[in-house]
Amino acid sequence: MAFTPLHDRVLVERVESDEKTAGGLIIPDSAKEKPAEGMIIAVGEGLKNQDGERIALDVKAGDRVLFGKWNGQEVTVDGKELLMMKESDIMGILS
Amino acid sequence: MAFTPLHDRVLVERVESDEKTAGGLIIPDSAKEKPAEGMIIAVGEGLKNQDGERIALDVKAGDRVLFGKWNGQEVTVDGKELLMMKESDIMGILS
Amino acid sequence: MAFTPLHDRVLVERVESDEKTAGGLIIPDSAKEKPAEGMIIAVGEGLKNQDGERIALDVKAGDRVLFGKWNGQEVTVDGKELLMMKESDIMGILS
Amino acid sequence: MAFTPLHDRVLVERVESDEKTAGGLIIPDSAKEKPAEGMIIAVGEGLKNQDGERIALDVKAGDRVLFGKWNGQEVTVDGKELLMMKESDIMGILS
Amino acid sequence: MAFTPLHDRVLVERVESDEKTAGGLIIPDSAKEKPAEGMIIAVGEGLKNQDGERIALDVKAGDRVLFGKWNGQEVTVDGKELLMMKESDIMGILS
Amino acid sequence: MAFTPLHDRVLVERVESDEKTAGGLIIPDSAKEKPAEGMIIAVGEGLKNQDGERIALDVKAGDRVLFGKWNGQEVTVDGKELLMMKESDIMGILS
Amino acid sequence: MAFTPLHDRVLVERVESDEKTAGGLIIPDSAKEKPAEGMIIAVGEGLKNQDGERIALDVKAGDRVLFGKWNGQEVTVDGKELLMMKESDIMGILS
Repeated sequence: MAFTPLHDRVLVERVESDEKTAGGLIIPDSAKEKPAEGMIIAVGEGLKNQDGERIALDVKAGDRVLFGKWNGQEVTVDGKELLMMKESDIMGILS
Repeated sequence: MAFTPLHDRVLVERVESDEKTAGGLIIPDSAKEKPAEGMIIAVGEGLKNQDGERIALDVKAGDRVLFGKWNGQEVTVDGKELLMMKESDIMGILS
Repeated sequence: MAFTPLHDRVLVERVESDEKTAGGLIIPDSAKEKPAEGMIIAVGEGLKNQDGERIALDVKAGDRVLFGKWNGQEVTVDGKELLMMKESDIMGILS
Repeated sequence: MAFTPLHDRVLVERVESDEKTAGGLIIPDSAKEKPAEGMIIAVGEGLKNQDGERIALDVKAGDRVLFGKWNGQEVTVDGKELLMMKESDIMGILS
Repeated sequence: MAFTPLHDRVLVERVESDEKTAGGLIIPDSAKEKPAEGMIIAVGEGLKNQDGERIALDVKAGDRVLFGKWNGQEVTVDGKELLMMKESDIMGILS
Repeated sequence: MAFTPLHDRVLVERVESDEKTAGGLIIPDSAKEKPAEGMIIAVGEGLKNQDGERIALDVKAGDRVLFGKWNGQEVTVDGKELLMMKESDIMGILS
Repeated sequence: MAFTPLHDRVLVERVESDEKTAGGLIIPDSAKEKPAEGMIIAVGEGLKNQDGERIALDVKAGDRVLFGKWNGQEVTVDGKELLMMKESDIMGILS
């Protein structure tokens, strides 16, 4: 069963980022109010502008992204825990 | 008696989604603050833009959709309990 | 005495909808926080856009409509109790 | 001394509407949280749009109108008690 | 020293309006929560629209105007107590 | 070290205005909740409109201006105490 | 691992500005509720306008900037502590 987000929404799978710092130390929990890392699973076709034309999104399926830790709403698609959010909740792309 | 939603509204019939996980386990209620699943029954013709032209909706009757659990207002059409909401309350289409 | 709503306003006469369900049961009051039913009596010519052109309304006199139970402001025209509301308060058209 | 409202403002003289119902009964005060009736005395030339062109008002001097009971600000012009409000506070025209 | 208001601002000198009614009675203070009267001293060139063109104001120096009693901010120019406000705070022009 | 404000921001140096009235009296502190006077030090190039073109500011370096007493944020450039604010916080130009 | 901010976001590395005044005195902490200084590390391609065209940013990688002390959200890229913020949080460019 596929799921196509509507408008400017994207479907994201959370990725546990490496808890260790560059130097190999474990970051304690209190220091981790940071953006979360994820993988874009599916994107909407974009909102329509006033002329009815779509404004395509800037992210695409497969992009590795950072997003606000508390953004998004949990959805279950085929038993998989995913996050549904708006593209504006995505901060940037890791590459 | 037919009912045609106005503007960017859609009429949705709630569908009870499968309560069991992929592995067949029953999801306890506390874990279910998730989007609800529904079937689009009827859609409005879309809002008019500043030039008086309509911006058609992205969903159509028959689409299987996810929407926020608390979105929509209950309406009874021909004794059937349906939900009236705006298209922007629809998160995406299942297919 | 006639009354012409201004801009995007409509004049609605409340219609008591059938209190019985399809199966003939009476719906208790507590279950009735539902949209109200009405008949459009008169409509405005529409708001003007930024170019001074009017955006005509989607409803017309005679339309049977559903609207939010608490929407509208009571007005008395020729001793008749009517409701004045904006077209955006109308959810859809019954036909 | 004449007074010309600016932009989308209108000057209204309150008219005491007939307190009796069609059947001749007096409406008690508690039932009267209804729109007020008035006569348009003067209207502004309209707001300018983004191109500097005016969007003319839909009401004109002499129109008999309904407006929200609590709308408008009292002004005294030549010792006469009038109400200054925006056209959007006018609900419709009686004719 | 001259003062040129910026954008859509106007500089107003408050004028004490005649406290007596047409019939010569003094209006008690409690009845005077009414607009204030003033004379336009200077006006801005208007805000620029999205194309960078100015939208000129509808009032000009010398206009006798009414404005909300509590609108404006006091400024002292050459020892004179004036009020700085936006044109939208002006209700209309007396002539 | 030069500092160029971004967008519609301006850099202002506060000027202590003459505390004496035209008649030579000292204004007590309580009467001084008035706009502050300043000199424009640097201005941004303006915000871009929807077409990506800049809307130039109406003030320029060297202008003597009035601004709301509590507007702006203090910045230190080369050890000098300046104020950073948006052009819309500037009330007008003294000349 | 590179990080590309999305839309109108910028990635900033905080720079400790010189704590001493021009005269060489240390500024006590209480006097330092001032903008923070930073270096732009990466910028987004800009938001799309209603026609789907991008509005490029006014800052670029390498710019030395001032920004509100409490603006931005901490992100860790390759073990480096950076700040993610919108271009509108940047006050100006030092050069």
